[in-house]
Amino acid sequence: MSAPAPSSDPTPEPAAATMSLTRQRPRSFIARAFSYFKSHSGLPRRASTSQLSRSSSTAASTCSSNMSATTFDATDALAINTIRCLAADMVQKANSGHPGAPMGCAPMAHTLFSRFIRCNPRNPKWINRDRFVLSNGHGCALQYVMLHLLGYDLSMDDLKAFRQLGSKTPGHPEAGHTPGIELTTGPLGQGISSAVGLAIAEAHMAATFNRPGFELFDNYTYVILGDGCLQEGVASEAMSLAGHLQLGKLIALYDDNHIQIDGDTELGFTEDVCKRMESYGWHTLVVSDGDSTNPIAIAQAVEAAKKVTDKPTLIKVRTTIGFGSAKAGQEKVHGSPLGAADLAHAKKTLGLNPDETFQVPQSVRDLFAKITARGVAAEEAWNTLFKQYQQAHPELAAELARRQKGELPAGLKERLPKYTPADAPVATRKLSENLLNAVAEHLPELMGGSADLTGSNLTRWKTATDFQPPATKLGDYAGRYLRFGVREHGMAAICNGLSAYGGFIPFCATFLVFAQYAAGATRLSSLSHHQVLYVMTHDSIGLGEDGPTHQPIETLAVLRATPNTLVFRPADGNEVSGAYWAALTASHTPSVFALSRQNVPHLEGSSADGVTRGGYVLSEAKNAQITLVGTGTELSLAVDAAKKLREQGIVARVVSLPCWQLFDAQPRAYQDEVFPAGIPVVSVEALGVFGWERYAHASVGLHGFGASGPAPQVYKQFGITVEGLVEKAQATLKYFAGKPVPNKLDRI
Amino acid sequence: MSAPAPSSDPTPEPAAATMSLTRQRPRSFIARAFSYFKSHSGLPRRASTSQLSRSSSTAASTCSSNMSATTFDATDALAINTIRCLAADMVQKANSGHPGAPMGCAPMAHTLFSRFIRCNPRNPKWINRDRFVLSNGHGCALQYVMLHLLGYDLSMDDLKAFRQLGSKTPGHPEAGHTPGIELTTGPLGQGISSAVGLAIAEAHMAATFNRPGFELFDNYTYVILGDGCLQEGVASEAMSLAGHLQLGKLIALYDDNHIQIDGDTELGFTEDVCKRMESYGWHTLVVSDGDSTNPIAIAQAVEAAKKVTDKPTLIKVRTTIGFGSAKAGQEKVHGSPLGAADLAHAKKTLGLNPDETFQVPQSVRDLFAKITARGVAAEEAWNTLFKQYQQAHPELAAELARRQKGELPAGLKERLPKYTPADAPVATRKLSENLLNAVAEHLPELMGGSADLTGSNLTRWKTATDFQPPATKLGDYAGRYLRFGVREHGMAAICNGLSAYGGFIPFCATFLVFAQYAAGATRLSSLSHHQVLYVMTHDSIGLGEDGPTHQPIETLAVLRATPNTLVFRPADGNEVSGAYWAALTASHTPSVFALSRQNVPHLEGSSADGVTRGGYVLSEAKNAQITLVGTGTELSLAVDAAKKLREQGIVARVVSLPCWQLFDAQPRAYQDEVFPAGIPVVSVEALGVFGWERYAHASVGLHGFGASGPAPQVYKQFGITVEGLVEKAQATLKYFAGKPVPNKLDRI
Repeated sequence: MSAPAPSSDPTPEPAAATMSLTRQRPRSFIARAFSYFKSHSGLPRRASTSQLSRSSSTAASTCSSNMSATTFDATDALAINTIRCLAADMVQKANSGHPGAPMGCAPMAHTLFSRFIRCNPRNPKWINRDRFVLSNGHGCALQYVMLHLLGYDLSMDDLKAFRQLGSKTPGHPEAGHTPGIELTTGPLGQGISSAVGLAIAEAHMAATFNRPGFELFDNYTYVILGDGCLQEGVASEAMSLAGHLQLGKLIALYDDNHIQIDGDTELGFTEDVCKRMESYGWHTLVVSDGDSTNPIAIAQAVEAAKKVTDKPTLIKVRTTIGFGSAKAGQEKVHGSPLGAADLAHAKKTLGLNPDETFQVPQSVRDLFAKITARGVAAEEAWNTLFKQYQQAHPELAAELARRQKGELPAGLKERLPKYTPADAPVATRKLSENLLNAVAEHLPELMGGSADLTGSNLTRWKTATDFQPPATKLGDYAGRYLRFGVREHGMAAICNGLSAYGGFIPFCATFLVFAQYAAGATRLSSLSHHQVLYVMTHDSIGLGEDGPTHQPIETLAVLRATPNTLVFRPADGNEVSGAYWAALTASHTPSVFALSRQNVPHLEGSSADGVTRGGYVLSEAKNAQITLVGTGTELSLAVDAAKKLREQGIVARVVSLPCWQLFDAQPRAYQDEVFPAGIPVVSVEALGVFGWERYAHASVGLHGFGASGPAPQVYKQFGITVEGLVEKAQATLKYFAGKPVPNKLDRI
Repeated sequence: MSAPAPSSDPTPEPAAATMSLTRQRPRSFIARAFSYFKSHSGLPRRASTSQLSRSSSTAASTCSSNMSATTFDATDALAINTIRCLAADMVQKANSGHPGAPMGCAPMAHTLFSRFIRCNPRNPKWINRDRFVLSNGHGCALQYVMLHLLGYDLSMDDLKAFRQLGSKTPGHPEAGHTPGIELTTGPLGQGISSAVGLAIAEAHMAATFNRPGFELFDNYTYVILGDGCLQEGVASEAMSLAGHLQLGKLIALYDDNHIQIDGDTELGFTEDVCKRMESYGWHTLVVSDGDSTNPIAIAQAVEAAKKVTDKPTLIKVRTTIGFGSAKAGQEKVHGSPLGAADLAHAKKTLGLNPDETFQVPQSVRDLFAKITARGVAAEEAWNTLFKQYQQAHPELAAELARRQKGELPAGLKERLPKYTPADAPVATRKLSENLLNAVAEHLPELMGGSADLTGSNLTRWKTATDFQPPATKLGDYAGRYLRFGVREHGMAAICNGLSAYGGFIPFCATFLVFAQYAAGATRLSSLSHHQVLYVMTHDSIGLGEDGPTHQPIETLAVLRATPNTLVFRPADGNEVSGAYWAALTASHTPSVFALSRQNVPHLEGSSADGVTRGGYVLSEAKNAQITLVGTGTELSLAVDAAKKLREQGIVARVVSLPCWQLFDAQPRAYQDEVFPAGIPVVSVEALGVFGWERYAHASVGLHGFGASGPAPQVYKQFGITVEGLVEKAQATLKYFAGKPVPNKLDRI
């Protein structure tokens, strides 16, 4: 794709109808914007050749339309006001929602989609599309309007069904639910943080698959975010890392409207946002009037942002929330419908028909038709390029196709380690490392890292290269190991972004208890069906000396209670292999591996296949009187307790239940084999007992927080021992003597 | 307290033994430090008179000893190296722990405790003590050593029992467990964030109780924090707010050792920390050699920090992790014992006896005896001042005494609103607002706010004043309403700090689902016994149109699974009153109120006292066949379902179970009254059903995520209706026909 000279159409005067409102920027403003940019450009600019070549090739697509990137006309002005009113109509009809942000952000959205964003509404999944993320997801009426106008499969009726049950237009954007929505947003800070993952994904795919003359990957990630996103810690974590990683193709527009729900941002958000971003290594720009329907300043800023290829850019755009409404600039317009009168007033003010709803002037339809056509052409050009790539680099092309289809490499399952009881005891976190060493080289879509616990989580395989800016000499963009830093929440959100990009199986790691630092993002992995692997080590009081601050008690409960989440607590080597296999083949579900610090033996009867069914009989016994069920490091306690009970003439069988969610999905007949009717069940797990009533008649576990001390002593302190389990089994049998045993599998 | 002229002892030459190591700073360095301070002082200085007076009065105590704040001698050098070796000995004996940070931070800790921190080891709870927080809590060997040397009730044997079961010296500092530990730290970012709460508390107490001539409150909050803390989003949230709030008495020393667990901070933490802090409105200073045993530069920086009264200060102190060890400056020294050989090497290098363990030279003992005496004297002076205050301001003095004792104001319970079924239906969040309006004026220790959802959480009572810097004209430091911004995690951590300060009952608010953003801090409320009230509204799919991103499903499960946490889901006005009363009287336990967006009727038989028992019979029935149990907004569904069942000749009784934890603490006899043996139980709650097996034989609730739509339609969609409950009750009776009903209260 060659780069034609940028178009230089003269700027026509916007039509009078809209000029009343458009505070047109004098040329001098542009100069101001650039002097600001100079004074705010922060660290010295660095750029790698590959980045520059990718950047220049990209210039082609943004200038390839018959619209200049930086001149606007009356139709653009009309389009911007049409967008504002459509969004306000949607909220009004739903009698619920947020009109303020869409009306304030319409010029930004129109500028991005009409002048910069390369996407094909006919194929929302085109892999080299520019990604757009509305991080202030409550403003999604804006995003739905844009998708509709661009020709995505989102009809006017869909817009009219905004926030209604079963509609394509829910109250916040949901990835996978609405065509063209890249990420689920609304929980503030998540969008921008996952967008960092999208930008990492692009840099990695480009470094991996691009070849001279074949810039298969060169897409940008554009984000609109608000004050709330910037206040959230998750965004701080991800944006700091984005600066370090020099993600030049991440461009964020900050909707600086000075208003949040409580009122003026002066109430609690007075930090210097640009200065903060520069401290992270970002490039910053300021647009002092983001309301204009002649948004040349926004366009110039985006152009300038694209020229800085070794830093993400934040463009601070001063806007007026609810622009056009009588309540413009007030918090009242944030989260409630305008009301009929104010809506009519807004339409009049914005040069539209106050008596009409959901109106789209033909000239605006025509404008967007051109934009759509440009997007279709862009993908066609890419498809042609890819055909040539298939000729020139058949293996790479095939590999890319495989990853896009989400097919695992052939023979991967055979690479999973197998163990026998003869093998030496080892910690399940170490078994996870063994597995990564066995498969990572053969699973190039696996990308991730640890929140600064690499040596404890054991997540870095022997041959791994760090994903780092080449300039740092610490790795390169083809590297697959991420140094997240102590940023658990940002880490999880970034993994959601990698998953959303497509062609990746992201993983991340920390201590299990710190999964709760990341809970805001992990629940979105589940809700948005992101296949993210959470490698969570030090998974019980077994971490010992670090004490109760680091010992998870309640953590498994919340993960098990979260829909569409596979929580695995494997007991030994074969179960670790089974857990990974189940996770790798669950392409629309996140998985959590709860792994141990301490060593475990490889158990007779342990089964990788059993793990894929969630639970299985580890050791059966004729005429069994009791079932002992355990997970992870406590399964061997169950085995030993069964032996002890046998010495007392009590016949016990042992069940391993590493994944409740998978077990609950098994046919009842299978579940009955695992937990036969009439036999009481005693569970053992070195965490809180909460939730075990689902399967067990009695439980050995924690009823409070843990304690600091050597692990064996801590286990003893809380009775998580063979003796404790034997006693509980005896008490259970005593309780049920002559009593019927309720079947825990019966779900009424 | 008058301010004597600062002492001006000449600096004696440190002894040769230690000089080998002490890279003494030339005077010119101090000049450098100050030129840096000038260039980094950020926003123009502002200061209120009251702050200045408080600051000047404080100067007295730091200079009142016979030690100059800014000159050090050989004994100081010996003390610093003694501290380093004691900490290393502890880790070595425990064969577990973190020697690196203590050896690197010893000069900071010694400077703070010997020259600045006012505390009385004989009375760790003196209310005007300076607070010290070790935010990088893994370095707690350092903190334990300091407490021991200062004469807190922490013996040498306690140091030798580091990380052992039942010791006073657990693996991470635990508030309430060890005398002198202000906050539980270790989970990174929590310490500095809660320290912001400590600083807010001081500013508020000073504004509330100080009177001319009576500076009862003027303590500083000193923090040592590391790279990890600065990477955590929770710290970003709290530090941004601290800058806005102009908390001049918060002074944080950043242990800038360039090393984290994964290796050099260059791997992922390359932001400009000082610039970031300045963007938040902090004052910053840099000390380029923090290793010296003549830490004059550190002392000068702290002095300079105290002079800036309207900004928190971050002092970036360049240190060497594991200073003295052969592994100094490497990640290897972060989290493992040095080993015998390196430990001996370190002692030799540091001028101590390599063959001796846990050694404290007499001169060091003598030095700390002086420091202790100074602290004792400081409290004595304060006590004298307070006696005079009692004469001059008896009411204020009595009020302060009451708050310190943690006694609620007389007659508070009578102020709680009471309701009858005749009262109009209203949302429980609104009932919470009514309650706050009724009691807040009479409960001055109540302080808190919302994460930018004030209008939705309804947490601001009519007469509230914002806690704001007077300069902002938005409120004052005597105000009790906090504008947290969209910072849920920082908000919860700050409330932990308010609670830790003493004399406060802090509260904070957001949507229930976003409690998961704050989970890292909420679990510390529970572990550290902080009485924090969490006002969590929009508590189910009942929030409707905002959709699944905002609808909690799993949130109650994790809160109910967390030890020492009271989770209330009140059903109507009387239950809201009961929940608040139970929470206000649980002085060592956090409470969560799950409150509704939608209206609820006031139910016949609802009882505030019943709530304080966790659960109770709302409507009893003779010869009942089934028990319907509900919480919150679904309790009225249970009432209506019982009526419907009665029409079908099925006798149902209704139980309200607003707080599981309190109910589980009731005598079995009471529990049997609530859930009589032999009667099956069906539960209803508009969240996930996880955990309900504990009480119910069948459950109506969610098995997946919610959906966006008007609340009534969403309820219908998921069968959370009277009809759905009736059907479930019928199915349950059918299932148990001729079958014994297991007693869910039996805990084996």
